This record gives sequence, C-alpha cells and structure tokens, in this order.
Amino acid sequence: MSTAAVAGKGLEGIVAANSGICWIDGEAGVLAYRGIDIHELAQHSSFEETTYLLWNGHLPNLLGLREFHQQLALARELDMRIIDMLRTFPKSATPMEVLRTAVSALSFYDADEKDNTHDANVRKAYNLTAQIAMIVAIYDRIRKGLDIVPPDRALSHAANFLWMLNGVKPSETATRTLDVALILHADHELNASTFAARVIAATLSDIHSAITGAIGALKGPLHGGANEGVMRLLHTIDKAGVDPVEYVKSMLASKQKISGFGHRVYKTEDPRATHLRKMSEQLGRDSGQPKWYEMSRAIELYIKQDKKLNANVDFYSASTYATLGIDIDLYTPIFAVSRIAGWAAHVIEQLDDNRLIRPRAEYIGPEYPQHWIPVAERP
Amino acid sequence: MSTAAVAGKGLEGIVAANSGICWIDGEAGVLAYRGIDIHELAQHSSFEETTYLLWNGHLPNLLGLREFHQQLALARELDMRIIDMLRTFPKSATPMEVLRTAVSALSFYDADEKDNTHDANVRKAYNLTAQIAMIVAIYDRIRKGLDIVPPDRALSHAANFLWMLNGVKPSETATRTLDVALILHADHELNASTFAARVIAATLSDIHSAITGAIGALKGPLHGGANEGVMRLLHTIDKAGVDPVEYVKSMLASKQKISGFGHRVYKTEDPRATHLRKMSEQLGRDSGQPKWYEMSRAIELYIKQDKKLNANVDFYSASTYATLGIDIDLYTPIFAVSRIAGWAAHVIEQLDDNRLIRPRAEYIGPEYPQHWIPVAERP
Repeated sequence: MSTAAVAGKGLEGIVAANSGICWIDGEAGVLAYRGIDIHELAQHSSFEETTYLLWNGHLPNLLGLREFHQQLALARELDMRIIDMLRTFPKSATPMEVLRTAVSALSFYDADEKDNTHDANVRKAYNLTAQIAMIVAIYDRIRKGLDIVPPDRALSHAANFLWMLNGVKPSETATRTLDVALILHADHELNASTFAARVIAATLSDIHSAITGAIGALKGPLHGGANEGVMRLLHTIDKAGVDPVEYVKSMLASKQKISGFGHRVYKTEDPRATHLRKMSEQLGRDSGQPKWYEMSRAIELYIKQDKKLNANVDFYSASTYATLGIDIDLYTPIFAVSRIAGWAAHVIEQLDDNRLIRPRAEYIGPEYPQHWIPVAERP
Repeated sequence: MSTAAVAGKGLEGIVAANSGICWIDGEAGVLAYRGIDIHELAQHSSFEETTYLLWNGHLPNLLGLREFHQQLALARELDMRIIDMLRTFPKSATPMEVLRTAVSALSFYDADEKDNTHDANVRKAYNLTAQIAMIVAIYDRIRKGLDIVPPDRALSHAANFLWMLNGVKPSETATRTLDVALILHADHELNASTFAARVIAATLSDIHSAITGAIGALKGPLHGGANEGVMRLLHTIDKAGVDPVEYVKSMLASKQKISGFGHRVYKTEDPRATHLRKMSEQLGRDSGQPKWYEMSRAIELYIKQDKKLNANVDFYSASTYATLGIDIDLYTPIFAVSRIAGWAAHVIEQLDDNRLIRPRAEYIGPEYPQHWIPVAERP
C-alpha cells in the first residue's frame, strides 16, 4: 500500500466526508447544528424543532413545526410482534443489546423496508425516532414486571418518553431537563456511531442496518457507554463513603481511566457540558438531593486542575439523569433516543451524494509470498 | 475544519489502520491471507484451516487443525430461544435482516457477553462462526415449513452447512465448491463491512455489536448484496429469453449499473473471480446445466471489452451458487457465513491495539453563526 496516504491512528484529523449538518470548532469550544449555536438551541428550542432543523437544514415555521410534531406523534406505534419479542428476551439482556436487536427487527414491519429513496428514508426516520424511545421505555417496563404504558400523542417527545417509562405524567422541570438533554445529544458530526452509520449506509444498505450498527457503536465505553461509567463510579464512591477526590486520585495512580473526561475534538470545554452541569446543579438543588452534583463537581475540578482534562457531554448527563430517577443502564439508550436525530440526518445526507466508504490498511503481516505447505510438514 | 487532511471521497486511498491479516496488490491482482496467496489456499486449504490462519497468523499443525475442527464443531449449538425467535419472524423477512437481528440477539445467551478480552473474543468468534451458518440454514428451513436439521459434528463447516440447509448429505463436489467459495470470501482487508466492524469495535463495544453492524453493511448492493443482483439479472434475461449481451447493452444505454463488475482496489482481474469462474464452468458442465455459466461468460466478455471492467468476486459466485441449487436470497448470507472469519480477525486485531476511530467532516452547511429566532418570525 505504498500509494495511499497514511492517516493518524483512529483517522484523527482526517476529513472523511462533506457534511452540512454539524459545525464544531474544537479550539473555541463551539458546536452548532446547521449553523445555529448549541447554546441558543439549548435555551430556546425543543427536541422536535431541533430534529426538524437537523433533517431540513433550517428552522420550521409554525405550520412546519406543527406538522412535525404531528408526524412524530403519529409514528408512536410499535408492531405488537416487536413488543411480543421484547417479552421473550431474558431479563439479563441489557437495554442496549435489546435496543440493537429490536431496531434490527423493526425493518421486518416497516412498509418502506425495500425503498431506499430519500422520501422513504425520511418516513423511516420519523418511525425510528418514535420507535427507539418507545422500545427503551417499554422494555424497561417489561423487565420490571410493570404494565406497558400506551403512548400519549398529545405529549412532546420528551414528555411522552418519561410518561411511557414511569407511568406518571412528568413534571415540567423533568420534561424540560430531558428535552434539553435530547437537544444537546442530537448530533455531533462524525462521531464513531454516526460514522459507522454512514459506512453502512454507503453500501446502499437500508437505514435500519445503519442505525442498528450505530447503536452497537454507541454502546461502547469510549463513546455513549461512558455516561453509565460515570454513574457507576459515583455510586461506588457513595457506597464506600470515601472522599471523591481521594478515590479518583487513587484510580489515576493505578492508571485507571475516569469516564466522562477529555474529547478527541474539543481542546477546551465541551459546550454541551456547560448546560448539563447547570441542569445537574439546578435539579440537585430543587430536588433537595445535591449529592451527585456535588460529587461530580469535586471530581471535575480536581481532574481539570491535575490532568488538564475537561468534562465532556457524558460527565454531567450522569448526575442529571440520576437526579431525574432514571436507572443507570438507561443512560446510553437515552443517548440513542436523542442521537437518532443526527444518525438519520447523516444517513440521508450520505445517500443524497453517495460513494462507498472503503479505505485501505497498511500491511504489517508476514511478507508476501509465504507458502501453503502440507499439514504434516508444519512445525 | 481547516487543520485536517481531506481524504478522497469514500476514503479512497486513505490508510485507516495497520493490519497484518490481508495483503492486496490491486495493480497486480494479488490477494493473500497472512502472506499466503489466495490461489494456494483455494487449491489446497479448507475453510477451517484458512480461518485458523486468519485468526492465528500461521497455518496450524496437525494437532492445531484437529483442535480447531473440534472447537468449531462443538460451537454448533444454538440456544433454543434463538430458534423460537426465528419462528416468530414474518415469512417476508429477508435472510439478511433475519441474520442481522438474530446475531444481535445471540449476545443475550453468550456466556462471555460482558468479557471483551482477547481470549473471550476468540471464544465468541468460534461461536459466531458456527452460529451464523446455523442461523442461515435454520431460518431457510423454517420459512419453507421444513423441519430443522440438527447439526452433524462429524462434518466439515461447509458440509454441515449444506446438510443443515438441504437435509441430505452433500456430494463431494458440492462440499468442495462451497468450501473453496468460503475460503475466497473469508477476508478482504478494509472492505466496507470489515471497516464498519472495526469502527464499532473501536468504541470498546462488544464483538456482537461489531458483527451485527458488519452484516448490515454487507447487505448493501455496493458490497455483498451484489451477488444477489447478478443472479436476479441472469434470471430476468433467462425469463425474457433474450440475448444476454443485447440485454446488458440496453441496460448500459439507459445508465443502469451491472452488478458484479469493477472494484475499488483491483485494477486487473480480481483473483477470486478466477476461481469462481472455473468452478462455475466446471459445475455447469458436470451438472448438465451450463446455462448460467454461459450467460455469465458472454456478459463478462462484453463488459470487459466495452467498459474495460473486470468481473469481481460477486459475479461468478452467483452462477456457482445457482448451479448448486441455492436460493438467490441466500447468496449474501453465505458471504457472511464466510466473512465472519475475517470480521472476527479484524475485530480482535483492532482491540489488541485500539484507538477510537473518529474522523472529521468538511463543513458545507450554513455559515456559523446563524441564529435561533421565534417561530412566529420565521418565513
């Protein structure tokens, strides 16, 4: 492979695609969807409006926004055979394994399965966005032996998810907190799961294949799985009743990785962490249980000072979700509930101007030619 | 993104990883696994021996080969709950959708699911290699309303697959043909499905996630799905009773793509096509049904002459499998039955020296900063 350009390990610094969806300035700590700063969206927008923006390239007008809400609410329907399948899964199956499997099976029942056109994929994107949230909520009810809560089409995406998960109408604070978290997680350019989705889609395979692969990538602890890692650490510290900074110091001394810090792209604070920190603090104060925020903040300050590493999106989403009373192993699935917006936008963008994504490897194996020899003659 | 290096579209010519598994010289038409030319392996080796080679870096001695056969045969076991699940799938589900879904569900029942160490992944690789073949055969029996055929541990991987698929002990010719096809398809460096598997694995997600994603990528008509495309074309031509060359000419005139020709990497004949052509011809002659080979050959010669495009691995695998009496929509699944060997080797190699695979995008969207404005003020 002497003719090819050798990229940094992990494709660091390599531009793998043109994309009009997400702008990141890692030096300045800027993240923008379709040119609009994430801070403005976190402050003013909703998950529905942000998803419209990601899919269409501009904010909707009143009619467009109303129609989008309606379409997404209408898509809140899950084939009974998917629900029956979820009931057969062993209770030991983690929500991410279940989500990966159920999303793969959704293609059986999607009327557009064999249609890979732009319009069909937009229809499938509505379905997948509604269905991923429903699968996460329904499987959690099933594994806990609780009745399934039917969707409420009058609710927003965030509120309906909390309703289907908990079976009680969520408070305004809980709904808005989740809504903002969904906005913040909705897209992040060519992160590993989105890149996996584009690699799969670029073979002209279907969007269900691409999203199934993306869920598998998101599951990894170097990606979406990190928010669960953060919360497990906080629980360990809490149970042991030790000082969080001392505990983290001893982890670092034995070369253990602390989840939720550092980012390939950001050289300064991850702008999503700014909002999640604020929400975590506010929620902790309002609910009278500031413990998780306070532990997190102590750890953040120490790692920032000692390791010069910034908290990333995963760090404060942990304490935020914990304070909302959400189970740890739903944190990464909730990341998927949001990121489907970006995955779908990227798959559709990839297919609108497609080329197979097929890099090369630098060969480092036994020199060619080695030879086949009869088995009896081998050492 | 001014600081990053811009790659060719689809990462053409970009080295995305170091790998000691597969050597390809696209100019010379050379393919070698661990340095051993594919021609030697196709002539002398078996799928089991080749898989050992891909996983271990060298050919096994007699004891090693015997143990490998035994391990793979012992792994021929599918949890009854997977089989029960296959029975619930609608008969309209394609074998690739089913395989993607079932492989995802396999993680529920793998004792090593939470163990991502090298040794655990080798154990999971044995399981996946045995299980993928079984799922393809068993689902085909189920959808046809036939009894499931229990695995025969005395048979080779290729022979057991044909046995479980057809319920009759395969001829030596059929077994050897499939065995060689499995050798030829077992690995191909950073093809799209293998690359997808590595992107997913590099988040430190599990091997089931990586292989599920790879199956989704293989499904695409620009990748493994092409062999089914070739056969559908041959059937269309056969049913219409027209001259194959005239038919292909008219397709090209209306800018339709002919599956099975051209390759990103090979600038000369794909060395795998050489063997598949020979097998297709031989099988056609021996079985007294040379039709598919002859049609294929006529199309190949025309496209080679007119478009300067060479047949690739998918082109003659179609007529080969057709002459073996295999259903069209099993061609791509059979590709997966083989390629799991390479996928597993690459996932394990990736994890042995891992870094997150996270490239960048060249931003082509609305210039930053655009602004959020209230919905009533939008056009």
